[in-house]
Amino acid sequence: MDVISVIRAKRDKQALTDDQIDWVIDAYTRGTVADEQMSALAMAILLNGMTRPEIARWTAAMINSGERMDFSTLSRPTADKHSTGGVGDKITLPLAPLVAACGAAVPQLSGRGLGHTGGTLDKLESIPGWRARLSNAEMLDVLNSTGAVICAAGDGLAPADKKLYALRDVTGTVEAIPLIASSIMSKKIAEGTGSLVLDVKVGSGAFMKTEADARELAETMVGLGTDHGVRTVALLTDMATPLGLTAGNALEVRESVEVLAGGGPADVIELTLALAREMLDAAGLKDADPAKALADGSAMDVWRRMISAQGGDPDADLPTSREQHVVTAPASGVLTRLDAYDVGVAAWRLGAGRARKEDPVQAAAGVELHAKPGDEVTAGAPLLTLHTDTPDRFGYALQSLESAYDIAPGGTDFAPRPIVLDRIV
Amino acid sequence: MDVISVIRAKRDKQALTDDQIDWVIDAYTRGTVADEQMSALAMAILLNGMTRPEIARWTAAMINSGERMDFSTLSRPTADKHSTGGVGDKITLPLAPLVAACGAAVPQLSGRGLGHTGGTLDKLESIPGWRARLSNAEMLDVLNSTGAVICAAGDGLAPADKKLYALRDVTGTVEAIPLIASSIMSKKIAEGTGSLVLDVKVGSGAFMKTEADARELAETMVGLGTDHGVRTVALLTDMATPLGLTAGNALEVRESVEVLAGGGPADVIELTLALAREMLDAAGLKDADPAKALADGSAMDVWRRMISAQGGDPDADLPTSREQHVVTAPASGVLTRLDAYDVGVAAWRLGAGRARKEDPVQAAAGVELHAKPGDEVTAGAPLLTLHTDTPDRFGYALQSLESAYDIAPGGTDFAPRPIVLDRIV
Repeated sequence: MDVISVIRAKRDKQALTDDQIDWVIDAYTRGTVADEQMSALAMAILLNGMTRPEIARWTAAMINSGERMDFSTLSRPTADKHSTGGVGDKITLPLAPLVAACGAAVPQLSGRGLGHTGGTLDKLESIPGWRARLSNAEMLDVLNSTGAVICAAGDGLAPADKKLYALRDVTGTVEAIPLIASSIMSKKIAEGTGSLVLDVKVGSGAFMKTEADARELAETMVGLGTDHGVRTVALLTDMATPLGLTAGNALEVRESVEVLAGGGPADVIELTLALAREMLDAAGLKDADPAKALADGSAMDVWRRMISAQGGDPDADLPTSREQHVVTAPASGVLTRLDAYDVGVAAWRLGAGRARKEDPVQAAAGVELHAKPGDEVTAGAPLLTLHTDTPDRFGYALQSLESAYDIAPGGTDFAPRPIVLDRIV
Repeated sequence: MDVISVIRAKRDKQALTDDQIDWVIDAYTRGTVADEQMSALAMAILLNGMTRPEIARWTAAMINSGERMDFSTLSRPTADKHSTGGVGDKITLPLAPLVAACGAAVPQLSGRGLGHTGGTLDKLESIPGWRARLSNAEMLDVLNSTGAVICAAGDGLAPADKKLYALRDVTGTVEAIPLIASSIMSKKIAEGTGSLVLDVKVGSGAFMKTEADARELAETMVGLGTDHGVRTVALLTDMATPLGLTAGNALEVRESVEVLAGGGPADVIELTLALAREMLDAAGLKDADPAKALADGSAMDVWRRMISAQGGDPDADLPTSREQHVVTAPASGVLTRLDAYDVGVAAWRLGAGRARKEDPVQAAAGVELHAKPGDEVTAGAPLLTLHTDTPDRFGYALQSLESAYDIAPGGTDFAPRPIVLDRIV
C-alpha cells in the first residue's frame, strides 16, 4: 500500500477500497503519511466526493484510531446533540441542563469557535473559574452528580479526526460533506452516546449554504449513526439570521441564563425546546415535559450545579466590554434581512473568535442585536451594538456589516422563515 | 492576502488573480505558505485547471523566484531541448554534441529519473568520473570550450519550481498540465536559452497518455516560450514503445555512443536528427547538416570533449550487470506491441530508477530489447534481457512484463506508428 496510489485513485474519481481507507487513516495517525499528502487527498475528496460506503468506512477507521467511551454504567439513558455551527448558536448551554432535568444523561463534548462561528467552550470560559478540560473520570463524576456535562473531548477520542480537522482548517478543505459527516460522527460514536440529535444549519451563517447540501449532510450523518447503533435524528434549521439577540461569548452566556430563567428570545426558546423534545424522544423519555422544566426552574438548577461542578461560579458577574459602538437604523420600516454570516464575521473581528487555533478570544466581545427580521425599526434608533475591549477593531468589524441588513418600507408584509425547516430520520 | 482564500478560489473553479499567483508563489518559496497548503492548491489546480493567462502568470512568478542566466556573451546562438520524459529516451546524449558540432551552443540543464522514466544525469553518471553538478562559471566554461554542456540546474534557478516539483512528486499532483508546463518552461526561460525545442511524448510510457493531452501541453508550452521571447517549437513523438533497444543507465550511454559512431537503432537516429534540425532551425543555423556531422565523426568529437570537460573518461569501460535474465518469445510471428510503460517499470524495478529522490540507482541495471514492433520473432529466441546487480529483483521486474507484448501470426501486415506524430509552433 502506498499513499500516492490512494491519492491518485480518489483524484481519478475511483472509490477507495476498505483496505485503502483503513491504511491511510492509520498511517496518517501514526505520521507515516505526511500532512501534505493528506491535504491533497482531502482536496480530492472535496472535489470528487465519496460514496456512502466509503464514508462509513472512513468514519469507522477514525473511530478505531482511538479509544471508545462507555456510559453503560449510568443509571439514565444518554442523549447527545451536535450542531454543525452557526452564529449566535448558544443552544447547547440551556439545552444540556434542560434535557438532564427531564431525566436523560447529557455528555456534551464540545468544541471551540473557528472562523465566523462561535464555540461552546469559548462561551462557557467567560464564566469565572469554569474548566473545559476534564479527565474521563471527572467527566463521569459530573455527569453522575448533575446529569449533564459540557467539556472538551479528550485526546484519546478519534485522534485521526483531531489531526485531520486541524489540517482541513488551514488547507481550504473544510467544506466537504464526507469529511464533515465523518468528523462529527466519529467523535459522537466514539463518545458512546446511546442517542444523538443533529442540528444541521442552513444558510449564510452555516457551512452548508443551501438546503440541498444540508439535507445531504444530515442524511449522511443519520445513516452513519444508525449503522453504528446510535438512535440518530437530524433537524434542518435556519441559519440565515443569527440565533437570538447576541453573538459573542459572555453575551451568549447571559442570554442562555435568561432562557433558563424563563425569559429570552423566542427563537432560542423554540429551538431549545424542539431539540430537547427530539433528544428525550430518542432517549426513550417520551413523557418528559421540557417546557415545564424550563418554567419551573429545574433546568436552571441543573445549570447551576453543572457550572459549579466544573469550577465555575454561576453567580459571578460576567465580563462586560470596555468599548461599545452603536449602529443605528438608516431608515424606518421593517427589517427584512439581518445576515448571519456578516454578523458572525463582525463578532469574530471584534475579538469573539480567533484567526488561528492558538489565539485567545475576548470574553466580552461580540454583537448585540436590537431587532430581528420581521421587527419594525425606526431611523436613528439602535440596530446593533458592537462590543470589544480593543476599539481599533471597530472599523474592520463595521466593514463586514455594510450590506448585512435590508429595511423595507413600514407596513411591508414580511414573514420570517421558520426556525425548524425539516426533520430527517 | 491569505492562502486559504487562494485555495478556496481555485477549489471553487475561479481563475486566480495575478496578485494571488504572485503572492502564493513568493510565500511558498519563503516558507510562509506550508507544504500542506500548497499541495491542496496543487490538487485543486489538477482537478479544476487553469486558464492560459493564469499559467503564464504562474510561470513568470516561478521565474521571478530565482536568478536568470545570461548566455549573451557566447559567440554562438543557443539552442536547448526538453523532453517530457519516456522510456529509453537517451536522445539528449547524442543530440547535444551533435547540435554543438553544427554550430550552436547547447546549455542542457537536465534532471534525474523518477518513477518509470529515466533521467539524463543518472545515465551520464554511469561514465566513470563524470560530474553532474557544475557552478555557473564552470558551466559557461564547458559551453565555451566544447559547445555543449549537460548538467544539473543550479539551486538559484526557479527555486519555487524545485520546491513545488518535489512536493508534487509525493502528493499525486504530477499529472496536471498547467503545473507540468509551468515547471518545464520556468526553468528553461530562467536558464536564458534563445531557442527551445520540446519533445512532448505521447503514449503508455509518457506522462501524457493521449494525443489530445500531449497536444494541449505542447501548445501551452509553446505559447509560454513565445511570450517570453524564446523561439519555441514542439514535436509530438511516440512513447507507446521504448526508444531504441535499451532502457537503463550505462545501457543507454552505450547505445548513444553507437549512434555517435554512425550506428545505433533507426528510431533513435531518426528522432535525434529530427530534433537536431528543429534546434538548428530555431537557432538560425538553417544551413547546418546534422546527418553529415553524425557521419563524419564531428559530433563524436564534441561528445568526447564534453564528457572529458566534466571529469569523465570517454574511453573508460562502462559498468556491466552482475546478473542477467533472458525472456524468450513464447511464439513465432510478428511483434506488434512492446509496451513502453511496462518496460520502464521493469527497468526501474531492476534498479535503474529510484523510488525516492534520495535513493541511489544501479548504473548497469535495465532492460535490453532484442526486437521492436514490426520485427519477426522466433519461439524460444531471446526477446528481452534483464540486467541487475541484485537478482532478487528479477521476480518483481518480470511481473511488470507479463502482458508487455503481443505477437501476431507470421506474415501479419503490421506498420509501426511513426516516431514524430506532429509538429506544433
